[in-house]
Amino acid sequence: MTINEEVRLLCTNAKEASLKLALATTEKKNSVLLCIAEKLKESKDELIAANERDIAAADANGVPKTMLDRLKINSERIDAICASLSDVASLEDPVGKGESWTRPSGLDISRVRVPIGVVAIIYEARPNVTVDSAALCLKTGNAVVLRGGKEAIHTNTAIVGIIKNALDECGLDPHCVELVASTDRESSVALMTMRGLVDVLIPRGGKGLIKSVVENATVPVIETGAGNCHLYVDESADMDMALKIAINAKCSRPSVCNAIETILVHASVAAKFLPAFALEAKKYDLQIRGCAKTCVLVSDAVEATEEDFATEYNDFIVAVRVVDSISDAISHINKYSTAHSEAIVTKDPANAERFLNEVNSAAVYVNASTRFTDGGEFGFGAEIGISTQKLHVRGPMGLAALTTEKYLIKGNGSIR
Amino acid sequence: MTINEEVRLLCTNAKEASLKLALATTEKKNSVLLCIAEKLKESKDELIAANERDIAAADANGVPKTMLDRLKINSERIDAICASLSDVASLEDPVGKGESWTRPSGLDISRVRVPIGVVAIIYEARPNVTVDSAALCLKTGNAVVLRGGKEAIHTNTAIVGIIKNALDECGLDPHCVELVASTDRESSVALMTMRGLVDVLIPRGGKGLIKSVVENATVPVIETGAGNCHLYVDESADMDMALKIAINAKCSRPSVCNAIETILVHASVAAKFLPAFALEAKKYDLQIRGCAKTCVLVSDAVEATEEDFATEYNDFIVAVRVVDSISDAISHINKYSTAHSEAIVTKDPANAERFLNEVNSAAVYVNASTRFTDGGEFGFGAEIGISTQKLHVRGPMGLAALTTEKYLIKGNGSIR
Repeated sequence: MTINEEVRLLCTNAKEASLKLALATTEKKNSVLLCIAEKLKESKDELIAANERDIAAADANGVPKTMLDRLKINSERIDAICASLSDVASLEDPVGKGESWTRPSGLDISRVRVPIGVVAIIYEARPNVTVDSAALCLKTGNAVVLRGGKEAIHTNTAIVGIIKNALDECGLDPHCVELVASTDRESSVALMTMRGLVDVLIPRGGKGLIKSVVENATVPVIETGAGNCHLYVDESADMDMALKIAINAKCSRPSVCNAIETILVHASVAAKFLPAFALEAKKYDLQIRGCAKTCVLVSDAVEATEEDFATEYNDFIVAVRVVDSISDAISHINKYSTAHSEAIVTKDPANAERFLNEVNSAAVYVNASTRFTDGGEFGFGAEIGISTQKLHVRGPMGLAALTTEKYLIKGNGSIR
Repeated sequence: MTINEEVRLLCTNAKEASLKLALATTEKKNSVLLCIAEKLKESKDELIAANERDIAAADANGVPKTMLDRLKINSERIDAICASLSDVASLEDPVGKGESWTRPSGLDISRVRVPIGVVAIIYEARPNVTVDSAALCLKTGNAVVLRGGKEAIHTNTAIVGIIKNALDECGLDPHCVELVASTDRESSVALMTMRGLVDVLIPRGGKGLIKSVVENATVPVIETGAGNCHLYVDESADMDMALKIAINAKCSRPSVCNAIETILVHASVAAKFLPAFALEAKKYDLQIRGCAKTCVLVSDAVEATEEDFATEYNDFIVAVRVVDSISDAISHINKYSTAHSEAIVTKDPANAERFLNEVNSAAVYVNASTRFTDGGEFGFGAEIGISTQKLHVRGPMGLAALTTEKYLIKGNGSIR
C-alpha cells in the first residue's frame, strides 16, 4: 500500500465508525473517556517506556532541550492528562441541543447540533494533544484521524492503542480514533486531500504547516493559532497599568499564540512609557526592535524592519512603534495582525469603544492582557484550538465548534 | 493591467470600503437598500435596453430559450426585484446581536455578530442574483465583489452602476459593491485566490463551477446548491401521501436543487406504489431510470446505471431503486447523496426517528416534500443560497450566515 492508500483506508474506516458514533448517548461517550483515563493510568510504565524511545531518538537528532521537555511524559503528566479527560467528561454535550418552531405551512422544524463526522488533526510533538484531541472529538460524537509529529510517534502509537482498547471495551468501534503511522510529509498532504472522507481538518502547528494546508488542502479547514497580537498604549493610559499589561502579555509566556508581538505607543506618552518598559523588560532579556522614535528613547533597541511588524516571534523579542493617533494604531493592527487578539490600555471610554469596534480581530481587549484568549479563561471548559479564520468559528473553540447543525422537519403530507 | 491585477484592485478597494461599511448603522444600511430600489425603478428603460443587448447576444450565440427566459428582465421583474429589496430592508439586522458574561477573573466578555468583511460571489446568468446578493451583503455590513456570467454582463454593469450611485448618494463608499468586468475563466480563478482580501467566496452555480472552486480556491468557501436529494417510501407509507409527495418533490420544479433525483421504495410496497407513480408521472413526461425490479414493475422504465444514482438531473428524469429495508435506504442515501435534503414517507414513528437521526443530510423530512428547503419557507426571510457543507452554516443561509463573531473583553488592568 502507498502512503496515500494507507491514509485513505484509515479515513474510510473512521468515516464508517463515525456514523455509529454519532448515535452514541452522552453517557456512553463519557464512559469511554473515563475508561481511557483508567487505562492510561494502568499503562504508565508502557507509556513512559515508549516515550523514552522518542526522547532518546529526538535527543540523538539534536532536538533542542525545550522541545524535548514538551515531548516528555512522566507519571505526573499522565495524571494531568487523565484529569483533563474527566474534565471533558463532565462538560455539557452540545450534540442534540437546538430549537424548534412551526411554520405557517404546518411544518415543524427543529435545528439541532450534530457531530461533524470525521475530524482530522495534524499537529506537532506534544503527546497530550493526542489525548486531548481524541477526547474532545469523542465527546462530540466525531471520529478523529490523528497525524502527529515524528518525534512522538512511539508515544502516540502507545496512547492510541490504549484508546482503541477502551473503545472496544465500551462497545464502540476502535476505528473511531485512528493514528496515521507514517510521519512523512506525504501522509500529511494525503490527509489534506481526503475529500468526502475528512469533514474538517484542524492543523495545529506553525507557519509551515498552515502554508502547506493553504496550498494543498481540498477538505474544509479550520486554521488555528497564528497570533501576531498587539498592545496599544493610548495617550490617556494609566502608565502603571500599561506597564503591567505589556510585561504580562509579552513576557509571561512568549511561546504561545496569545502573547503580544508588537507594542504601539501614542507619541505623547512614548517618552514616559518606553524607558520604563525597557527597564522592566531587561529582567526578561527581552530584545526590543523599535521604530526610529523608539530607538531614540530606548538606547539598546535595535531598528525594526517592515518585516518585524509582520512577524510572530514566539520569543523574547518585541517590536515597538510610536504612533501619532489611535487611528494610526488601528490601521497598523488591521494591516499587520493575524486577527487573533489585540488590546488597548486607555482611560478614555470613546477610544475604548473605537478600538473595540474598529479592530478587526477575534478577541479585542480593553485594559486587559491578550493572554486571556483561551477556551478555559473564556469559560468554555476545554479548547481544541484558537481559530484565526472568520468562517464556522472564531477565537477559542469549545466543544460546540466540533459540531454542525441539521434540520429535522416533520409534516403531514406537506407539499409546496 | 492583467485580469488578475484588475481583480486584485477591485478586491483591495472592496476591503477598504468594508472597514467603514462594517460600522454603518442598520438605518443607514436600510436607507441604501431603499435608495437602490428607487433608482432601479427610475432606470427601467436603461436597464431593459442593457438587458436587450444581452438577450440579443445570447440568442445569436444559440443560448436555449429557457436560459433566455432566466436572463430576461422587464418592468414586472424589476418591480419584483425592488419588492425584494424592501423585504431585505425590513428584516432584522444580525450585526451587533450577541451575549455577555463575566468571568471569575473579573473580565466582562461579550460575543457579538460582526460582518465577515468582503464576500465574493460567482454566479451565472440571472440578473436578479446581482441585486439580491448585493442587498444581503449590504444589509449585513459586508462589501461584495460580484462575478456574474458573460450572458448578463450588460445588465449587470447597468445594475451595479445604479447601486454605486445609490451608495454614493447615501454617503457610503461605492466600492462596497464591485462587479468584475471580465467574464473570462481567468477572472473567476483570480477571485478564488485573493487570500487576505476575500473573506469568503460563495459559488452559486453548477458542478463545473464547484469543481473549479475545489481545485483552485485558496480563500474560504461556502459551497452551495448541489442537490442529489432522495425520497424513501417506507413499507408503512400512506400510498396517496407518498404519491402526492413524490410528484411534488420531483415534478413541481425539477430544475432547482431541492427537487428529488432518486426515489427509494420498500420492496413490500413497490408493486403498489411504482405503477401508480409511473402513471401520474406520464403527465409530466417524466423519464424513469430504474433498478431491475423497477423495470419489471414499470414497463417503460429504462435500466439505471450506477452513475444514475450519483446524478443530479435537474430535469424530468428520476432514478428509482427498490430496497429491502429502511437500513438499505439510509445506506444508499448516505452513499450517494450530496447531503442537501431527503424525505421519508412513513406511518411508523420508529422508522421516522431512525431516518431523521441516521440520514446525514442538512435537511431531513418526515411526510413532507424536500421542496421546502428554502430560506423563506424556513422563516429566515431571505436566502443567499443553500449550504451543502458542514462548516459555518448548513442548509438555507439567512442573513446571520453572512456574519461572523468577535469577542469584546473589558478588564481593569487584568493580567494572567
